[in-house]
This record gives sequence, C-alpha cells and structure tokens, in this order.
Amino acid sequence: MSDPHAIVTELSENECWALLVAGEFGRFAVAIGSRPEIFPVNYRASDGSILIRTAEGTKLFGVGVNDEVAFEVDDYTATEAWSVIVRGRARVLESPAEIAEAERVQLRPWARTPKTRFIRVDAAEVTGRRFTFGSETELAYV
Amino acid sequence: MSDPHAIVTELSENECWALLVAGEFGRFAVAIGSRPEIFPVNYRASDGSILIRTAEGTKLFGVGVNDEVAFEVDDYTATEAWSVIVRGRARVLESPAEIAEAERVQLRPWARTPKTRFIRVDAAEVTGRRFTFGSETELAYV
Repeated sequence: MSDPHAIVTELSENECWALLVAGEFGRFAVAIGSRPEIFPVNYRASDGSILIRTAEGTKLFGVGVNDEVAFEVDDYTATEAWSVIVRGRARVLESPAEIAEAERVQLRPWARTPKTRFIRVDAAEVTGRRFTFGSETELAYV
Repeated sequence: MSDPHAIVTELSENECWALLVAGEFGRFAVAIGSRPEIFPVNYRASDGSILIRTAEGTKLFGVGVNDEVAFEVDDYTATEAWSVIVRGRARVLESPAEIAEAERVQLRPWARTPKTRFIRVDAAEVTGRRFTFGSETELAYV
C-alpha cells in the first residue's frame, strides 16, 4: 500500500470552537485510577465549555474521582478529516440555577433515563487538526 | 424539550466484533498519570484485537507508561445510534515478524509520517449498545 500524502493543518482555537459549537456528538474520556474510560455523548459547546447530559453511572463516578477529562469530536469525508480535542476539568452541576440553565439547552440524550445530571467541562486547552487527503489514487484507501 | 424514548439494546460480543471489523475509524484513549488522552485513529480489527498505526508521539508514550487502554467506535443516523467500546492492554509491536504481519494489513493513516509504529490492543472486554430512537417528533431534536 502507499501512504496518502495528507496535508495536516493545525486548527486555530477559533476554528476549533466553531467546529465544537456546530457539533452535537462527541466522546468523553476520564481516567479512573490508571484505567481510561471513553463514552459517546451528546453535548453542547459554548463560552469555553462543554455541557454533557448523563445519567448516574461511570461517567459521573469518574468525574467525582478525577476531574481531569478529555473530550473529542471529529468528522471525515473522502477528501478530508478533522478532529478537535478539549482538555479540562469537569464538574457535575449542583446548584439549582446552573441546572435550570443547563435544562434550557437543547441537549438530546440517546436514552430516556430516570435521573438526569449535567457535567460541564471547562476547557483549559483546545487543539485541532485538519487532514486534507491526497490524490484520487490515495483515496482508494479511504 | 422532550426526551426521546430511545430503546437501548446491549449488543452481543459477536455483534460488537462484526461492527468493529466493518469499521476503520475509531478513538483510542489512554491515561497518562491521572490525565486521560484521546486520539482519533484508523484501525483494523480481527481475531480479538485492534491494530492501530501511529507515529512516534503521545499515543506511543502513553502506552509505554500505562498499557491499560480503551478504544471506541460509533455511528449514528436519524433513527439509530450504536457504540462499541473495547478495553484491554496495548503493546507496541517490536518483533520483525509481527511488524511484517501488521504491514500487510491495509491501514490508511491520516497523515504521512516519517516513522510508522504499530500498537495492538488485545481485547479483554468488549461492550456495545444500540439506541433506537423514538417518534418523528423526537427526531426533530436530532
């Protein structure tokens, strides 16, 4: 096989946030002890943070044990791919005012759950890369 | 907003592997100390393991520090979504025979890199869920 000669472009922070705000589906990672856990989630991004809706479970437990988290969104087509990664600290919203504000955000959960909680990730670092793929020949490997 | 009444189905291990084998793009998570890192990757799945091609960098470093990893693939449409999560131990392929075997697998990297290494994740646990979404009204939230 041949390597594709993809052109890799670092995205600016503004470009990253534009992609984050346009998306609604990403993956959330937390380390529980030495064990990484990864979860697909629906989210909303705004004002330097990521809002995630969840039920009781490992995600909440993980954030309680260790608030350092990573969050990722990506997409790809035959001609290009991009990914944006957010690193930051997560906290479970506890105050009625914050929860009420989060409730107003249209966050579609994947499943009805008996109890809804919200996790907010305050972004400390946002990085992104765009990969523009090469020739038609190389696209045969897509 | 209304909650969608998604039906959640646990996937069997065979169903999970069928989805893993059919895919080629996923996300790899590793914990470096208490910090989770997440990377989009191209992969091939077969025989209970996930093969990832990478360059020198954080992924390789992370696996060297802590071989407990998680790997995720997902997809969604207007009517359903699914995700499969693999947990296991990762190792960097070192023997010429293993590397030669990995080279024969058609793994499309996103970018040309000066040095290619292969990480193999031997799956210890594979879980998956399928979410079938509800009414048309609820799909307005997709």
